[in-house]
Amino acid sequence: MTANRQIVLAQLPGSDHLGPQHFRLNVAEAGAPGEGEVLLKILYVSLDAANRAWMQGATYRAAIESGDVMAGGALAEVVASKADHLAPGDLVFADTGWQEYAVLPAKHLAKIPRMEPLTHLLSVYGVAGLTAYFGLLDCGQPKTGETVVVSAAAGSVGSIVGQIAKIKGCRVVGIAGGAEKCKLLVDELGFDAAIDYKSETVRKALRAAAPDGVDVYFDNVGGDILEAALFNMNTHGRIACCGAVSQYDGAAPSHGPRGIPGLIVTKRLTMRGFIVSDFSAGNEQALTDLQTWVADGRLKVREDVLEGLESLPGALVGLLAGENVGKRMVRVA
Amino acid sequence: MTANRQIVLAQLPGSDHLGPQHFRLNVAEAGAPGEGEVLLKILYVSLDAANRAWMQGATYRAAIESGDVMAGGALAEVVASKADHLAPGDLVFADTGWQEYAVLPAKHLAKIPRMEPLTHLLSVYGVAGLTAYFGLLDCGQPKTGETVVVSAAAGSVGSIVGQIAKIKGCRVVGIAGGAEKCKLLVDELGFDAAIDYKSETVRKALRAAAPDGVDVYFDNVGGDILEAALFNMNTHGRIACCGAVSQYDGAAPSHGPRGIPGLIVTKRLTMRGFIVSDFSAGNEQALTDLQTWVADGRLKVREDVLEGLESLPGALVGLLAGENVGKRMVRVA
Repeated sequence: MTANRQIVLAQLPGSDHLGPQHFRLNVAEAGAPGEGEVLLKILYVSLDAANRAWMQGATYRAAIESGDVMAGGALAEVVASKADHLAPGDLVFADTGWQEYAVLPAKHLAKIPRMEPLTHLLSVYGVAGLTAYFGLLDCGQPKTGETVVVSAAAGSVGSIVGQIAKIKGCRVVGIAGGAEKCKLLVDELGFDAAIDYKSETVRKALRAAAPDGVDVYFDNVGGDILEAALFNMNTHGRIACCGAVSQYDGAAPSHGPRGIPGLIVTKRLTMRGFIVSDFSAGNEQALTDLQTWVADGRLKVREDVLEGLESLPGALVGLLAGENVGKRMVRVA
Repeated sequence: MTANRQIVLAQLPGSDHLGPQHFRLNVAEAGAPGEGEVLLKILYVSLDAANRAWMQGATYRAAIESGDVMAGGALAEVVASKADHLAPGDLVFADTGWQEYAVLPAKHLAKIPRMEPLTHLLSVYGVAGLTAYFGLLDCGQPKTGETVVVSAAAGSVGSIVGQIAKIKGCRVVGIAGGAEKCKLLVDELGFDAAIDYKSETVRKALRAAAPDGVDVYFDNVGGDILEAALFNMNTHGRIACCGAVSQYDGAAPSHGPRGIPGLIVTKRLTMRGFIVSDFSAGNEQALTDLQTWVADGRLKVREDVLEGLESLPGALVGLLAGENVGKRMVRVA
C-alpha cells in the first residue's frame, strides 16, 4: 500500500486573494488502476494562472470545489497500466491534480516521447509553448514588419510569444511588472522594448514604444492593460485573448475595458479567444518549429522550478503575484 | 445661379443628446464642377446612427466639425460632369452631406444602375443591405441550425440580418425597443422570437428565447445588450460588431461590458468589427443574392421615407431614439 500525499483545496477563496490558508495536506492511498485506467506517478506539476480561474466557476472545465484535490496539469509517469496503449515507464501529460499519485482513465492520455530536460515538456514543448505558438500565429497572424505587443511578457507564455514574434520579423513590445523583468525581456530575450506597468502609464508608454501603432496584441491579463492596448491598436489589428490574470485573484471585475465595442468597430479589430486544445491538429508542426528554434538558439527557454509537493500552494500564490520569470513548475518526484 | 439649401451642424452636441438646436439652415450656391469633378443633385439622404458617431471624433472618417455642412451619404444624380466616366443623369452614392447640391471629385464615384424603386438603392441594395449581408455571413459565419441574435433588429440593418439568417436556416431572435417592433419582427419578418429590451431583462429573456445558446450575435448597439449576449454565447460563438448606437448620443461610456475578456477566453469567442467597404470585392455576389431573395419574397424590404431637406435634423434625432422601422431616409428632390 503506497501513501499518496495530496494538496486539497480546503476552502474556496471566493473574492479574496488566494493564500496558503485555502489549502491543506491530505494523505490517501495511491490506489490501483481498474480496467482501462492507469496509475500515474506525478513528476512535475505545472503552475498556471488558469488554476485560480477554475476556482471562480465552470470555464472550459468544471469548477474546482472545496474539498477537491487541487486540480492542475502535470507531467507524470505510468506506474501500472490496465490500458493497451500505455505501459509502465511511459510519460503522459494529464490533469492529475496536486498529488503524488493519480489513477486516471487512460482513454484521453497519450504517450509523450521522453527527452532531456524533462521540464521542457511542461514549458516550451508543453501547454505554454503551444499556447504561445497557436495564439500568436493562428489568432494573431503577425506579418513581417508589424508591431506585436504581449502582456505578462516575462511569464511562461508571454516570454515565448515575444520571441516567436521576433523570429517572424516583427517589432516586439513586452509589458511586464518591474524593472528587472523588463530588462530581461530586452537584454536576454531580444524584445525591442518593454513597459513596466507598475511604474508607467501603459497607454502612453505604448504610444511611445509602438510609434506605428499595434497590429497584434497578445492578451494574458485583461483589464486596464487590455484597454490601453485597444486604444493603441491599428486598423484591422488582431487581439489574441489568452487569459485575464488581472481578474482571477479577487472579486469579479465590475466592468470591462472602455472602447468595446466602439474601437472594435471603428478600427475593425478582431478579438479572438482560444485555448490550446482547439489547435491540437497542428501540434506536430508546432513542435517541429519550436524544436528548431530552440536548437538554433533563437528561442530561449526560461523555467522556474520549485521543489516538493508542499511548495505548490505558495508557488501558485506567488505566480498570481507575478513572482516568476518563465514557466513555473514544482518537482514532486 | 442655382441656390443650394444646406443643413449645417451649427454646434457639436458634445456629450448632450443631439437635438434640432444643433443644426441650422444655410443657403449657398450650387457651384460648378472643376476638372475631374461632378455637380450632383441630391435625391435621397440616408440617415444612419453612424452620423452621430462622426460627431464624437475621427472614426473610419474624419470627425464632423461645427460649421460644416452636416455629413451624410446620399443617392444623387449627376447634373454636370467634368469627369470622363460620369454623365448627366447618372446615379451615384456619395457622402454629399445634407444639402440639395454638391460638387465632388468624381474619382471615387461609381455609376449605379437605375432601378425602381430608387429607395432600394439606399436600403436593401445600399449600405444597409450590404452591411447586413457581409456582417452576418462573413463575420458571423452562421451555420444551418445555429441560433443568430441581432440587436436594433427592426432597424435598417437588423431587419435584413434577421431575414438573411432565416434564409440560411438559423433560429433567429431579434432585440428591439417596444412591443410593436417585436410583433413586426415575428409576424411580418419571420423572426422566431423577439425581445423588447425596454420591458424585459435581456440577459434572462435571451436565455429563454435562445435555449440552446447563441452562436452568432450581430451587435448594432453595444453596452448592456452586448453584455447580455456575451453571457449567452456558446463556445466558439461569433460576434459581428457593426455599431454601438447605445453609446453614440451622449457622454462616452465610462466602461465596457463585463465578461471581456474573461468570456472571450473561456468560450473561445471571436468578436470582429467591420465596415461595409472592407468587403467591396464581394459586392456583386452580395447584390445578386439580395436581389434573388427580394424577388422571391423571402427578403422583405422595410423603408421609412421622410420628405424634405428641413426634416433631416429631426429624422436623425428620431432615428437615435429608435423611431424608425427599416431604412430611414429623406427625399430631398
